[in-house]
Amino acid sequence: MSNYNKNPITFDYNNMLKDYVGNDGFTVEELKAASKDAVKAFKAVKAGRGLNMMGWTDLPYNQKEVVADIKQTAKEIRKKFDYFVVLGIGGSALGPLAVFQSICHLHYNDLPKSKRKGPKFYVEDNVDPERMKALLDVIDIKKTMFNVITKSGSTSETMTQYLIINDILKKELGSDAKNHIIATTSHEKGNLIKIAKEEGYKTFYIPDGVGGRFSELCPVGLLPAAVLNIDIKTMLDGAKFMDKRCSKSDLFVNPALMAATLQYLSMKKGRNISVMMPYADGLKLFADWYAQLWGESLGKNKDLNGNSCNVGQTPVKSLGVTDQHSQVQLYTEGPFDKVITLIGVDSYRTEVKIPNGCESIPSVNFLCGHTMNELITSEMVATEYALTKSGKLNNRIMLPEINEFSIGQLMMFFMLQTAYTGALLNIDTFNQPGVEEGKNATYALLGRDGYQEKAKEIKSKKEKSTDYII
Amino acid sequence: MSNYNKNPITFDYNNMLKDYVGNDGFTVEELKAASKDAVKAFKAVKAGRGLNMMGWTDLPYNQKEVVADIKQTAKEIRKKFDYFVVLGIGGSALGPLAVFQSICHLHYNDLPKSKRKGPKFYVEDNVDPERMKALLDVIDIKKTMFNVITKSGSTSETMTQYLIINDILKKELGSDAKNHIIATTSHEKGNLIKIAKEEGYKTFYIPDGVGGRFSELCPVGLLPAAVLNIDIKTMLDGAKFMDKRCSKSDLFVNPALMAATLQYLSMKKGRNISVMMPYADGLKLFADWYAQLWGESLGKNKDLNGNSCNVGQTPVKSLGVTDQHSQVQLYTEGPFDKVITLIGVDSYRTEVKIPNGCESIPSVNFLCGHTMNELITSEMVATEYALTKSGKLNNRIMLPEINEFSIGQLMMFFMLQTAYTGALLNIDTFNQPGVEEGKNATYALLGRDGYQEKAKEIKSKKEKSTDYII
Repeated sequence: MSNYNKNPITFDYNNMLKDYVGNDGFTVEELKAASKDAVKAFKAVKAGRGLNMMGWTDLPYNQKEVVADIKQTAKEIRKKFDYFVVLGIGGSALGPLAVFQSICHLHYNDLPKSKRKGPKFYVEDNVDPERMKALLDVIDIKKTMFNVITKSGSTSETMTQYLIINDILKKELGSDAKNHIIATTSHEKGNLIKIAKEEGYKTFYIPDGVGGRFSELCPVGLLPAAVLNIDIKTMLDGAKFMDKRCSKSDLFVNPALMAATLQYLSMKKGRNISVMMPYADGLKLFADWYAQLWGESLGKNKDLNGNSCNVGQTPVKSLGVTDQHSQVQLYTEGPFDKVITLIGVDSYRTEVKIPNGCESIPSVNFLCGHTMNELITSEMVATEYALTKSGKLNNRIMLPEINEFSIGQLMMFFMLQTAYTGALLNIDTFNQPGVEEGKNATYALLGRDGYQEKAKEIKSKKEKSTDYII
Repeated sequence: MSNYNKNPITFDYNNMLKDYVGNDGFTVEELKAASKDAVKAFKAVKAGRGLNMMGWTDLPYNQKEVVADIKQTAKEIRKKFDYFVVLGIGGSALGPLAVFQSICHLHYNDLPKSKRKGPKFYVEDNVDPERMKALLDVIDIKKTMFNVITKSGSTSETMTQYLIINDILKKELGSDAKNHIIATTSHEKGNLIKIAKEEGYKTFYIPDGVGGRFSELCPVGLLPAAVLNIDIKTMLDGAKFMDKRCSKSDLFVNPALMAATLQYLSMKKGRNISVMMPYADGLKLFADWYAQLWGESLGKNKDLNGNSCNVGQTPVKSLGVTDQHSQVQLYTEGPFDKVITLIGVDSYRTEVKIPNGCESIPSVNFLCGHTMNELITSEMVATEYALTKSGKLNNRIMLPEINEFSIGQLMMFFMLQTAYTGALLNIDTFNQPGVEEGKNATYALLGRDGYQEKAKEIKSKKEKSTDYII
């Protein structure tokens, strides 16, 4: 990495076209015919920028001060603490994890402290008691900073973790406990801000218009990243760069709009699965971040006019080349029900040569003299070839290199694509009403006051028959 | 864990029935009508046991000697080595990873050596150069045992890793290099056995009739597990226990046969997605193992009569409760296109209390006094309730506890379910012809001798237009 690579990422949709992929593809005429809808979606998204739940479009532009505060805080954390633990779930966990894995060493926590240059890093996004115990086994709580992230402060999972950790901190550290917790939450609303003020925690704010799955570029993601020595300003610059590239309503110019339109047209044809398959271990968890963004934004049962719909592609996380030995059999020979997005890397951050040592075995020896870089790239191209040959819709995003600038671009690309696709589907991209039923049922099952009716409703449900449990 | 829990796992399909889930479900009459096909599938699988690629059915019964050898070898490895690295991909990686995560400490590698009681454990299942470098940064190769796993010895990814590691070992250790590699491979065929004999490696054998995705219960999985102090005999006993429970042709009695029939009927109705959602961090990677088993076995474009088909459900890996904040919005409100399999645990291996500390905030305080165990279980039941209320097909598997016996049961359950489903679909469950195209294209791209024709074919393909790369 001689010069920091700030080239644009590219979106290649050749293999979404009939001329390349065959029958399942689209013609350029079909895309042109869809332009009208695409322009409409573009305008709706543009008109919504910065309003309601679209505060995330402002994040590359309006955080100068908070970035300075975050960087200063991160510096102090690196000095004082050996462990940094995020307590959060959903967007509060998936964004920090994706960025951590993409930029930091792939075995970061296993490095000696001198090579890490930052605290060990854990993201706790579940309420499995076995996991909580496991965490407590490997951290020294006296040397740990906890970052509690929840906008509302009523996320049961995060607040459960908070209660447990705060109790331990107070028992071990007394009044110093408060210096081991940073709250990232709503400025005014919600519970966590109240608690933070009472207890005296350092706080960072989640803007009102930024929902969980669109929050990585606000303090939710920026603080953990900065603690890990990740260059958050460059990440925001990358996002800004992509935002500018998506400022035109012409889908043949605006990459996120073209990507959205292609997925929309594919969904209309019944392609109900969206596979993300990065060819880089550093992007494995990026696919998890995308899965929430895509699934929760587009999986809706009502359109904006109140009509019933049941739409949404199911996101599938895959990893190249690993999942060639797991999923590609299905992708090539299985149903015509998916769009596969390959993500490649022009330049890996290291090169590994494949040495000689197998001269007598031709079926292995051909590898010798090549590099792992050539192998992984050839396998990506070969998979793309096999998918296309079997007529399966696929497209490819190329990163010049995995770094803060390209990750910023990639995140903004997918957030815009999601917003455009939601507009094309005429749904509310930014709510998640379908999560409420399960939340309320949990409250009822745990006996929360005010949920007696829900408890009754659950009880009144037809009881399971043991005949059907074998 | 006072007594080792050897209770049966259970399969609960109430919410696959119309009476419970509504319109999308099946009636008991429909299931009875499917009995004839189910019996036929059962008989086909039974007749195939131990033959051709169904050697995996014998594994719980015929490995007494090899288990003793593995245990002895594992004991010596634990004594002499600080790191144990699996070099393998596909089934050679997914099985070892699934069992490791389910039985070992959730932050195993972060534990101090005294608490680990075994070497640090890595599974390298990709050819990303960044990952190879990262591995070499954190292991001491002089204290590392490598387990190279490939049946044919011509898996490009694994042999690439082998070449790199063997080169380093020879440079660092000279003739002692051979004591740092164990080969798990075919007894007679293939390249790795030749190399192993030449170099003098300790070897374990993969039976001819055991394919990658059905190999966890042979030395492929047993050696890594034994090195980690996992009780492999009990795991095999669990598999045997499930095998016996599936010895009847009556689908109302044979859990794997009922599970297969329900998925088969769902697929026929267009439910082309199979979600596995365990409510336990210990089972997260189990869903990866399942994804290969299900995807690669059932994703086929020809039936046994040679007719074209393009069948196969796409497996989706999910994690409870984590993915409630990512995927459940889609599962409840999105299309009627999936079957969701929840996996629960009756008894977690630890209990964590949620302490008081939020008396003034009712929306948090209701959690206090409960345990994390109650919370995670309530959330599973609540999600099941929400899925069912929204009419989405779901079923639930319960493990009495995560341990060797239940994991053995679970693996055999899914392998049998897969075999039955393949028989119902009238396809070859055990081949993977769709992987060849990509492999051959890789060979051609890397200039392997004998692949000149393929290289020409690739070159002759319509060249991508830069117009469609933005």
